[in-house]
Amino acid sequence: MIELEHIKRIARTSPSKIVLMIIDGIGGLPHPETGKTELETARKPNLNRIARDSVCGLIDPVSPGITPGSAPGHLAIFGYDPVKYNIGRGVLEAVGIDVELKAQDIAARGNFCTVDDQGLIKHRRAGRISTDKNALLCRLLSDIAVEGVEISVLPVKEHRFVLIIRGQGLSPDLTDSDPQQLGLPPRKVDPLSHQAEKTARIVNEFLSQARNRLKSQPSANMILLRGFSRRPDLPSMSEIYKLKPAAIATYPMYRGLARLVGMQVLPTGDTITDQLSTLRRYYADFDFFFVHFKSTDSLGEDGNFQAKVQAIEELDSALPDLLSLDPDVLIVTGDHSTPATLAMHSWHPVPFMLRSKWCRRDQVAEFSEKACLAGGMGRFSALEIMPLALAHALKLDKFGA
Amino acid sequence: MIELEHIKRIARTSPSKIVLMIIDGIGGLPHPETGKTELETARKPNLNRIARDSVCGLIDPVSPGITPGSAPGHLAIFGYDPVKYNIGRGVLEAVGIDVELKAQDIAARGNFCTVDDQGLIKHRRAGRISTDKNALLCRLLSDIAVEGVEISVLPVKEHRFVLIIRGQGLSPDLTDSDPQQLGLPPRKVDPLSHQAEKTARIVNEFLSQARNRLKSQPSANMILLRGFSRRPDLPSMSEIYKLKPAAIATYPMYRGLARLVGMQVLPTGDTITDQLSTLRRYYADFDFFFVHFKSTDSLGEDGNFQAKVQAIEELDSALPDLLSLDPDVLIVTGDHSTPATLAMHSWHPVPFMLRSKWCRRDQVAEFSEKACLAGGMGRFSALEIMPLALAHALKLDKFGA
Repeated sequence: MIELEHIKRIARTSPSKIVLMIIDGIGGLPHPETGKTELETARKPNLNRIARDSVCGLIDPVSPGITPGSAPGHLAIFGYDPVKYNIGRGVLEAVGIDVELKAQDIAARGNFCTVDDQGLIKHRRAGRISTDKNALLCRLLSDIAVEGVEISVLPVKEHRFVLIIRGQGLSPDLTDSDPQQLGLPPRKVDPLSHQAEKTARIVNEFLSQARNRLKSQPSANMILLRGFSRRPDLPSMSEIYKLKPAAIATYPMYRGLARLVGMQVLPTGDTITDQLSTLRRYYADFDFFFVHFKSTDSLGEDGNFQAKVQAIEELDSALPDLLSLDPDVLIVTGDHSTPATLAMHSWHPVPFMLRSKWCRRDQVAEFSEKACLAGGMGRFSALEIMPLALAHALKLDKFGA
Repeated sequence: MIELEHIKRIARTSPSKIVLMIIDGIGGLPHPETGKTELETARKPNLNRIARDSVCGLIDPVSPGITPGSAPGHLAIFGYDPVKYNIGRGVLEAVGIDVELKAQDIAARGNFCTVDDQGLIKHRRAGRISTDKNALLCRLLSDIAVEGVEISVLPVKEHRFVLIIRGQGLSPDLTDSDPQQLGLPPRKVDPLSHQAEKTARIVNEFLSQARNRLKSQPSANMILLRGFSRRPDLPSMSEIYKLKPAAIATYPMYRGLARLVGMQVLPTGDTITDQLSTLRRYYADFDFFFVHFKSTDSLGEDGNFQAKVQAIEELDSALPDLLSLDPDVLIVTGDHSTPATLAMHSWHPVPFMLRSKWCRRDQVAEFSEKACLAGGMGRFSALEIMPLALAHALKLDKFGA
């Protein structure tokens, strides 16, 4: 397996353009009545046209049998081994609301919860308070001042928030305050290393003040913190691949992930048509574009087979706008499967196609799970995608003399 | 590549059942007259039926070109990298006669041999003495007493035995006494570390007493020891996978291997029908069953093509009893190939199929080497089998958020 450091040594800039379209959760399973997957059911002449001009295959985002979360699935496609580059829960939560973390910031995932008279946890989610109420309480906690650090408490959704601590000499090496069990008191956090002692003091002081400020609340009268973490030290895509990369995504989580690997996030609208207009607008300014299509995953998670089929058809009908740009390399794949029959992310491998003047086409004539199995790439690791993209764009030198 | 430590973090218990059937040495090569392999020749409607409902593929137990012994082949399927987890020769010999080793026991593989008047090795196997004679001599040696340790000498077959030393402060870090060459004297063993000095003294004292006790024997007048080793420190399947695993095997070697990874070994009879009755009897008590079918390998090693075909047919006709249990995940594969034409274990990849409500079926309609090549799993490492089994049984959480 080639490592990023090897790629870095042979990557070179060139005017060629790469477009990577990630259709979130695109892989599926057959509908029990028809025996056809979502992709096999959808009318998708443009995706099939691309397949005929491509080398196709099936990717394992992490490895066979492993169901990827959104972050590991995307990191793998961007070429970063998700087993090696682990993103902490706190950072992921911050990324998910599109917060830009500085390198030294400490982030934690927070829950508002309910404790009883003796301080024991009664509801881990404070009865799922409203997002509006959440925002109000976060403002209350953001005022807390602790020795020389800057504290932000940012609402996510319902009972969830992100705590960000900015300052000197901090470390994320802390235990959770969340015991993840009812009937226990929220814990103090403990330092897991000498370097984290000061941070532990700060967090425990924050927790104690938070308890005071919330004590009169009817349900959200305490907080739970977990997943203290710092932005992972990912080498940027421009550093490794010598690319000038841009992201066109409608959901904050994917914009955040793109930022972590050094992509510039472009302003765009809510629909795939908006996203492809953005692509056209900025096409001259970058040489790598990540275009993220979300609804296939959401509808798969809802278990709505027919709506996922329609989302594929909606995407397909927008594609001529992309095809008219005729990128030197066009890749279409997904970060994982989300079969509507399972109604969740799954471990099944994901259809993949790469179209380029220099690809060795295979016999695949349809973009689907079954058809791609017979493709020229066979079944392979998502970590190979970036080297393939660069190679077909003639952006990689020979390895060795 | 996902490691056991990662699997451990995402494994969860659930009521679903996994049955793993290992058909020993199942892979084959074409008969020169018919051009068909053993599997392709056999009438096997039930295996083919399972194939049609499965995702199929071909596994490499160790890696392409590598012929696995029984231990590495099985360890890999159980998810333990056989390159990382090496089982010493002495331990393997003990496992092969179903001896339960304690963690600190030292085991060595022994040969009875013949030495001449000058003490030089004349026959490395003492002319392959009978197993009965072997048992008699082992009793003679088991009486030997050496400073504060407990010594067992257990017969295997013909000239082979296992030496087990139990006591405090021992180490397996010793050279062999067996020079593996004729015309040389048996060696004293040397310690390879400071910790092994005491053990070396004990073994050399044992060797010297054994020489005395055997000197009047006509052929088996000395012994050779090699492969001093200790039970490998394998994390158990229940620890890693959160399974409650059981083994149903007729041969001691496979029961021993199963025990090494923490399976409970169930009492069973000699035939596959007995084994499947055992499966039914204990079906409620465990959630993972390893069923081992041996004769395909033995008959392949005998070079008996037709008998291996019949063994496959015998297995196939017993399968309805298994299928009526309808396990949530049913896997059928082998630990290596044993082509009758080669009459030995071989390096050829092994047919694999996994049947589950949640598998993505492929076009494979027959359980054979050629047919499985077109399967949805393609060609893959046996180390992926356990993650796939757990995934399809819905016993794995998402990796990362």
